[in-house]
Amino acid sequence: MKKHNFSAGPCILPPNVLQEAADAVRELDNSGLSLIEISHRSKPFVAVMDEARALVKELLNVPEGYEVLFLQGGASLGFLTAAYNFHKQGETAAYVNTGTWSKKAIKEAKLLGDVDVIASSESSNFDHIPSFGAINHPSLHITTNNTIFGTQFKSMPSLGEGQVLMADMSSDIFSQELNIADFDLIYAGAQKNMGPAGTVMYIVKTESLGKTGRAIPSYLDLAVHIDKDSMFNTPPVFAVYTSMLTLRWLKNLGGVAEIQKHNEAKAKLMYSEIDRNPLFEGFAQAESRSNMNATFKLSNDELAAKFDEMWNAAGINGLKGHRSIGGYRASMYNALPLESVQVLVDVMKEFERTHG
Amino acid sequence: MKKHNFSAGPCILPPNVLQEAADAVRELDNSGLSLIEISHRSKPFVAVMDEARALVKELLNVPEGYEVLFLQGGASLGFLTAAYNFHKQGETAAYVNTGTWSKKAIKEAKLLGDVDVIASSESSNFDHIPSFGAINHPSLHITTNNTIFGTQFKSMPSLGEGQVLMADMSSDIFSQELNIADFDLIYAGAQKNMGPAGTVMYIVKTESLGKTGRAIPSYLDLAVHIDKDSMFNTPPVFAVYTSMLTLRWLKNLGGVAEIQKHNEAKAKLMYSEIDRNPLFEGFAQAESRSNMNATFKLSNDELAAKFDEMWNAAGINGLKGHRSIGGYRASMYNALPLESVQVLVDVMKEFERTHG
Repeated sequence: MKKHNFSAGPCILPPNVLQEAADAVRELDNSGLSLIEISHRSKPFVAVMDEARALVKELLNVPEGYEVLFLQGGASLGFLTAAYNFHKQGETAAYVNTGTWSKKAIKEAKLLGDVDVIASSESSNFDHIPSFGAINHPSLHITTNNTIFGTQFKSMPSLGEGQVLMADMSSDIFSQELNIADFDLIYAGAQKNMGPAGTVMYIVKTESLGKTGRAIPSYLDLAVHIDKDSMFNTPPVFAVYTSMLTLRWLKNLGGVAEIQKHNEAKAKLMYSEIDRNPLFEGFAQAESRSNMNATFKLSNDELAAKFDEMWNAAGINGLKGHRSIGGYRASMYNALPLESVQVLVDVMKEFERTHG
Repeated sequence: MKKHNFSAGPCILPPNVLQEAADAVRELDNSGLSLIEISHRSKPFVAVMDEARALVKELLNVPEGYEVLFLQGGASLGFLTAAYNFHKQGETAAYVNTGTWSKKAIKEAKLLGDVDVIASSESSNFDHIPSFGAINHPSLHITTNNTIFGTQFKSMPSLGEGQVLMADMSSDIFSQELNIADFDLIYAGAQKNMGPAGTVMYIVKTESLGKTGRAIPSYLDLAVHIDKDSMFNTPPVFAVYTSMLTLRWLKNLGGVAEIQKHNEAKAKLMYSEIDRNPLFEGFAQAESRSNMNATFKLSNDELAAKFDEMWNAAGINGLKGHRSIGGYRASMYNALPLESVQVLVDVMKEFERTHG
């Protein structure tokens, strides 16, 4: 039976990517060797790393003066890396608090200096993206999409000359067009729209580096990794290879502008049903709703067992909400087909018919 | 044609591990989903992580009071993590310098405090493991095997009560029996004897943690990862799964005592030929020779093109020495069969016959 994979991450990847990744683990391009038993400095793997980095630049129209890295440690190490490379010693960094991931980023930044949380939606349990005015701090950090609460920035902040904008885009990178020139640092764990768990991608404006006045440990120093073309140490070979395959898939599909249309269509279908169906209630405020993660709950919690039985029977996987807010979460990352959203919507309609 | 994979890392893995890992990427246990598209908090993956950690404990006879972690960042982040967790503020840590990896570990440790290099073989280009006497420092760090120069500790230091012993065992973990109780911290990148690149394993004596007097960033804090059962953040799912498969393979083979015999037989065969054959010279001093990486060169460099042609024709892969010492390096990790060493030795004999 076909599965409809709404998992929040690690999440669905395109079927041909899974097939090609499996083939490469068995044997890479008729080489007699597996992808995972060759040197990372061999020609075949250097070509993989180069193509992965080039695809990021091509798909996001990354301008001159930026470098792309594939490293390890996920966004959780990225929180610390971001602060080490951009939080100037003795100055106060601005952070927007939109939930769990922002809070973790703030915690790591505080180890290195003062942090001013300039906006937060914590008082309403992070059900929206808070607004904020002009930024007077040397740097600002945002989390563009919150997977747990289902909120997403609908427009990006624009800072002045010399101010640094950092964004954790782990859960919506490659889902919509971006103006990279607005950012000094973008980082994103691979395991949503880019590939499997095990690598984190950084897009770095190189001229913004080296200005914090602090000694940076080697692994946390983005300049070290740039100097070594993401090969300062042994890279996570399988995760980089599979990310490259996923980026190739996205390019063949028509790129980010095209996938954005798919994502908007999926989100429209999903939220229309949540709003229409009296048996469900959305969690996030309408103007902050994420195109990646739709969060909702039953109007009547006592029907949960019935609803769970129905979506499980339809082959739907990963629909349970995060333990911190409960309810349901339909994660609709790039590789999820519209057809899967339709299956879920049909289950919701059938649930209304039988239990409304 | 069968390949004989002497790559220094990432390196050869058992054929059935490659097959099973490929199968799981295609579909995990008839679940309808790939290993790499399910939640890391799902039952199937939590079982994988638990089994991987349990196999480490079983295979190395890890005593009570130790925890096992699978994290990201390789040993290169391990250098920093080791120092953060065990280098007491205001005290001087002892390090043994046996080459590239030790030097990198020392560099990171110096960011956190004073380091005393108590022994070094740098003056003879790291061709042996230097001896040293009693340690009076609160901690000692060693690199048990040097992949580049082909040297290996033949006995482990034994410290006194309250002194901390840290070891980077990236390139010889699981190759020989160990008395874990001698160590407070062992760490090892997976990509030699344990699995693919993309995860690093830590064995930690828990009562030795929390005594440095410093604030530790979350990702670098081993206590944080222990508290979360290696799931503080999304783990590198594929690398952990494939490491688990490799550890299962080792267990089925008879465990570490059994593989140690294989490794000793391979090393004996290899070094006997290096010593016997007048066309070759070993690099490392005899008493420090590594069972994992045999380094050697031609007595006459002008014959290099001929020798390279011969071993390439025999299906041998990854025999070139590291760029910092040149020559050749036969890496003989756990999964390399004795048969492959015999093929190389036969090529060396044939080379002697035709060019001696």
